[in-house]
Amino acid sequence: MAIILYDLAGAEPERRFSPFCWRIRMALAHKGLAVEAVPWRFTEKDKLPQPNAGRVPVIVDGDRVVHDSAAIADYLEQRYPERSLFGDRGGRTLARFVQAWTDTVLHPSLIRFMLVDIHRHCAPQDQDYFRRSREERFGVRLEDIVRDREAQLPAFRTSLDPLRRMLEQQDFIGGAAPAYADYIVFGAFQWSRAISDFELLAPDDNIAAWRTRMLDLFDGLARRVPAYGG
Amino acid sequence: MAIILYDLAGAEPERRFSPFCWRIRMALAHKGLAVEAVPWRFTEKDKLPQPNAGRVPVIVDGDRVVHDSAAIADYLEQRYPERSLFGDRGGRTLARFVQAWTDTVLHPSLIRFMLVDIHRHCAPQDQDYFRRSREERFGVRLEDIVRDREAQLPAFRTSLDPLRRMLEQQDFIGGAAPAYADYIVFGAFQWSRAISDFELLAPDDNIAAWRTRMLDLFDGLARRVPAYGG
Repeated sequence: MAIILYDLAGAEPERRFSPFCWRIRMALAHKGLAVEAVPWRFTEKDKLPQPNAGRVPVIVDGDRVVHDSAAIADYLEQRYPERSLFGDRGGRTLARFVQAWTDTVLHPSLIRFMLVDIHRHCAPQDQDYFRRSREERFGVRLEDIVRDREAQLPAFRTSLDPLRRMLEQQDFIGGAAPAYADYIVFGAFQWSRAISDFELLAPDDNIAAWRTRMLDLFDGLARRVPAYGG
Repeated sequence: MAIILYDLAGAEPERRFSPFCWRIRMALAHKGLAVEAVPWRFTEKDKLPQPNAGRVPVIVDGDRVVHDSAAIADYLEQRYPERSLFGDRGGRTLARFVQAWTDTVLHPSLIRFMLVDIHRHCAPQDQDYFRRSREERFGVRLEDIVRDREAQLPAFRTSLDPLRRMLEQQDFIGGAAPAYADYIVFGAFQWSRAISDFELLAPDDNIAAWRTRMLDLFDGLARRVPAYGG
């Protein structure tokens, strides 16, 4: 029986743009597990199985419900130990640091490029909720946050230096093969790619080459969905 | 026979302030290996054993000369496999990412706080070299770079968010016990601590608690050297 994944969707049900859900989509594919990725909208809090924290991803695996991407990755690793997501114990620690970096550096920059694009792609019933909650968080209109994104791009690219430096030495963050740490970072790029035509990377950036390798994984799983270039 | 480590020193021979040498000091202690840490100055390029890249750390272990901190860590791990620096293969990948982050985010910020302090502590024969080479690199006087460091401090502290987030979950970057990834980051703080009274961290920062744990390691190895507070 396929694992059910509640997966953030836009107005088009197949446009899936949660970076956290993409971590799990890729992790499930890494494990070779079948998934039914159910479209879910921001305002459908009451449609999520219990327990949850009002956010996706949430998975249902038989009678188990697990929420929070890191907890889901740990659950999958324990329940389905073959094709390890972490390589070994040190790999889980790597994933923690990469997650901390992604959540505190990468996502906060990216969201400021994408707020208007996300709003545009939201399901109609989500648009008011999305605008209101995000404008409350940032204290200004979405359009005002995004306006100078071209000017922010160089600083964003510089903030990727740790990843860039790492990829000078190896094809994936996990080493010679992708690991959960790769899916964490890729989720951020796929989030952007699903929703926005704003190109984050210079074409000769080694991170762009890594992103292409990530898009090639699992028979092009992440390439086959509605998305923009990149 | 003790391993010889060529170790950057200031005017006082016991003031050791290279973050890269501190990585190796801690790694040698982690392995329980005896070390003779020979003071070396910037301008003593011709005193380094061959091969070298004109920089420290360089170690001499019997008839082997190894330079570059990452290469030395790999050498030590291979030659002295007990008490692994990396935990396992995934831990080496963690160390790579942490090193990439340290070298591209942490060091470039820190150096801007410390240039005048470093110059002040340099051996007299190194001071001209240090000022000339660094002013050439930065394009302005050392004093002009350091002047607004109080204003830079909040952004610096924010840049530590990945480390801070990580240490909410575990005592060391390596997990329950310190690993080479910890020594990489600690080297940066010890660099600052050896040379400057400028306090980098708020007292209630969990990174300050981690730094204290690092200073406690190996019978207070890093605490016992000439340094400022922190």
